[in-house]
Amino acid sequence: MITTELFVKMTIDRWNGSIANVNKHLNALTDEQLQKEIAPGKNRGTYLLGHLIAVHDDMLKLLDMREKLYPELSEPFIQYADKVVEPTPTASDLRKMWEKQNGWLQEKFAKMKPEEWFEKHTAVSEEDFMKEPYRNKLNIIITRTSHLQYHSGQIVLLN
Amino acid sequence: MITTELFVKMTIDRWNGSIANVNKHLNALTDEQLQKEIAPGKNRGTYLLGHLIAVHDDMLKLLDMREKLYPELSEPFIQYADKVVEPTPTASDLRKMWEKQNGWLQEKFAKMKPEEWFEKHTAVSEEDFMKEPYRNKLNIIITRTSHLQYHSGQIVLLN
Repeated sequence: MITTELFVKMTIDRWNGSIANVNKHLNALTDEQLQKEIAPGKNRGTYLLGHLIAVHDDMLKLLDMREKLYPELSEPFIQYADKVVEPTPTASDLRKMWEKQNGWLQEKFAKMKPEEWFEKHTAVSEEDFMKEPYRNKLNIIITRTSHLQYHSGQIVLLN
Repeated sequence: MITTELFVKMTIDRWNGSIANVNKHLNALTDEQLQKEIAPGKNRGTYLLGHLIAVHDDMLKLLDMREKLYPELSEPFIQYADKVVEPTPTASDLRKMWEKQNGWLQEKFAKMKPEEWFEKHTAVSEEDFMKEPYRNKLNIIITRTSHLQYHSGQIVLLN
């Protein structure tokens, strides 16, 4: 039987799988390795980790869950490219922020009822949502999982 | 209203968006650039493109759609690492295979009825599928979109 619960499980399982996968890569790297560029002249691992935390923090607002945990990360890790704003948090600081954020998200996601994922996210108007019902909270998870996988394929290069 | 059609649209839109995104990167690269390593000592762009074609070819079987278009790509691009099997198809050959495969997939996906995506894929038994209904065709698209995004984040480094 095709149920809302089934579809939500498929989407959230993929999110959780992507987080577990990037954690496996991150845990295999020393802080020194994480501070290196993924390829000559490209972003550093620490920038990518800070970028993921900042993007997932924005997601908390889009999902109408809570204010950002780390509003100070938007400027150095979303607004600006790597190596523009210095100093930024250390590799060790970023790891702690990432773990705390993931713990929070995991707990919150586990409490969501399947139907709640199909509510509109906060960046779409009621009027637009009537016409475009796919602009829901679950779609935010779908697009952010894609984003996470994209950068995960870069972080793995540090090893 | 939460419908099967809505879930399917969300998933297929993300697949199509990921294909469009990697195509934008691929089209911005010359064949010479695509033959380069994404980072020193790592896979070449041509290996990653061949790998994506071979994995999507496997998907045709998992989705019970047709036999592989390019069975000869499994050995050099899935079974073996880059630079083990030589010669492999040229960058220009791979681009043509990729375009043909995407055209075929796009046409086929457009004809699928929403409910058909929730049928079991070919690598799961009827018995297991009864207990694990998430092992359906749509889930193959979800996991392969993740895989595509992972390598897309690597291909972009060639530019």
